[in-house]
Amino acid sequence: MNHKLPPGLTATAVVAASSANLGPGFDSMGVALSLYDEIIVETTESGLVVEVEGQGAGQVPLDGSHLVVRAIERGLVATGTVAGGLRVRCRNDIPHSRGLGSSAAAVVGGLAAANGLAAQADYPMMTEDEMVQISSEFEGHPDNAAAAVLGGAVVSWTEVCGSSRRYAAAPISLHPDINLFAAVPQVRSSTAETRAVLPDQVSHTDARFNLSRSALLVVALTQRPDLLMAATEDVLHQPQRASAMPASAEYLTVLRRCGVAAVLSGAGPAVLAMSTDAELPAEALEFGRINGFAVDRMSVGDGVRWTSGVTVHR
Amino acid sequence: MNHKLPPGLTATAVVAASSANLGPGFDSMGVALSLYDEIIVETTESGLVVEVEGQGAGQVPLDGSHLVVRAIERGLVATGTVAGGLRVRCRNDIPHSRGLGSSAAAVVGGLAAANGLAAQADYPMMTEDEMVQISSEFEGHPDNAAAAVLGGAVVSWTEVCGSSRRYAAAPISLHPDINLFAAVPQVRSSTAETRAVLPDQVSHTDARFNLSRSALLVVALTQRPDLLMAATEDVLHQPQRASAMPASAEYLTVLRRCGVAAVLSGAGPAVLAMSTDAELPAEALEFGRINGFAVDRMSVGDGVRWTSGVTVHR
Repeated sequence: MNHKLPPGLTATAVVAASSANLGPGFDSMGVALSLYDEIIVETTESGLVVEVEGQGAGQVPLDGSHLVVRAIERGLVATGTVAGGLRVRCRNDIPHSRGLGSSAAAVVGGLAAANGLAAQADYPMMTEDEMVQISSEFEGHPDNAAAAVLGGAVVSWTEVCGSSRRYAAAPISLHPDINLFAAVPQVRSSTAETRAVLPDQVSHTDARFNLSRSALLVVALTQRPDLLMAATEDVLHQPQRASAMPASAEYLTVLRRCGVAAVLSGAGPAVLAMSTDAELPAEALEFGRINGFAVDRMSVGDGVRWTSGVTVHR
Repeated sequence: MNHKLPPGLTATAVVAASSANLGPGFDSMGVALSLYDEIIVETTESGLVVEVEGQGAGQVPLDGSHLVVRAIERGLVATGTVAGGLRVRCRNDIPHSRGLGSSAAAVVGGLAAANGLAAQADYPMMTEDEMVQISSEFEGHPDNAAAAVLGGAVVSWTEVCGSSRRYAAAPISLHPDINLFAAVPQVRSSTAETRAVLPDQVSHTDARFNLSRSALLVVALTQRPDLLMAATEDVLHQPQRASAMPASAEYLTVLRRCGVAAVLSGAGPAVLAMSTDAELPAEALEFGRINGFAVDRMSVGDGVRWTSGVTVHR
């Protein structure tokens, strides 16, 4: 029997965008980016009101199927609480369906908001590990979810035990010389569709290729930015997705030809570029401009934060 | 035209054993172990004399097909030199055909000995990168070779460009809390045969499994020994090799059941155990004793060293 929260409690969560895969680290590596969604939730007597500003406004459902609402309710269950009704306000800066982890942010932000409500009723909050677990269950893979929970860069993995899956993640410290750039096109992509193009079987050689590069990527991200080009090579998902997002694929080629370690951000079509230079080469910026990519330098995103009340210090 | 070395030059190389793969890091991850072969080479007017003491004595060929001799000759070519004749003495502590990198040590030691000869004739020595490249060409994969050249733990990778392959490696620093134990059985194994049991195709899911664990293994080895158990899981080569080396497979199970991160050393049948405890559990030691495994705690091996003359300070 869950504890009924009184009406009038409020909580706010701020949660970062994220870039998953990072080339070879398919479903494993991720990094949070300095682009945030804010979720403000208030308990009410009954009913559900959802308001969305910014990204996704007018496009996402405003009922119980809204991902943030589902996550808040799941989070309340996890904290042993339940609300009579909810008012949820979403102020979104993370673009949807671009591969920037907006759905992971919605789930993680919803869980964090539930934590903020539970804290006011003196109910035990979810730990970071529990938030990684629950949010990864929503996602089906832990890379975006773990980055959104923990912030920074992460290595995540999945342990299958019978029919259950345990998701876990370890943070790694991004080398301070690495600058991140997100190139976001206007076109959208569906993760479900872009996963469908992946083959069921791959060669043992290709599996070896990616496992060596993903190990190297940890070395490159933490200690050896000079190895980022070799460390971001991938044969398991980016080549397969190229025909579904030709402009992004070409942008990867342009950036890498310029010596910039560029990868698809998640399932694309956004592109993440990593460089020890403070700016991207002129040729790469020009390609982005001509092809409708909004190119922005990013900082590493913080882990999700939540508080009681309607503001979070960002 | 290579420079003819005068007779009477001597050089000595000392080179470490190594454990490759380390579970998920097939053909990529490796660690040098504190078990060394010593190679003493002398230029002569003509002919070839090979002497082998210790491991391999009476079993390896004593002619130009001897791996150390082939490596010395390859190394002399790389340094722009050639010898009229050679006398080669091998004092071997590294067991053969157990998965402890004895062939990589032979090649790397031979190259290093050639460096020692070339240095005396003031010819440019091979760099570490060149030694990794040439020794990996002998091996077909860079994990043992890079560990033997660089010492310590390494992440290595292979870049295929047309018909040529470039091998490279990055050193990583093993966390000081990690203790290494080698369990070496009496039975031998052929790397060629144990590679033949590997499938040409694997599932995308299995490829993802190993790439996440190999990334995690870098984190575990360098910063998070508490994650070694999860980080040493593998689905790409150890399960496939289990039936060819049942005692080793069972030893892995026994060790891992005791909470010790154990993996096949290279292609086996030796087992490498990694633990933050100073000793292995009694149950694991007992299994080794009953099943004929010599179990020894190892230190991390040094990179190959060479000198002119007949001694190296070990």
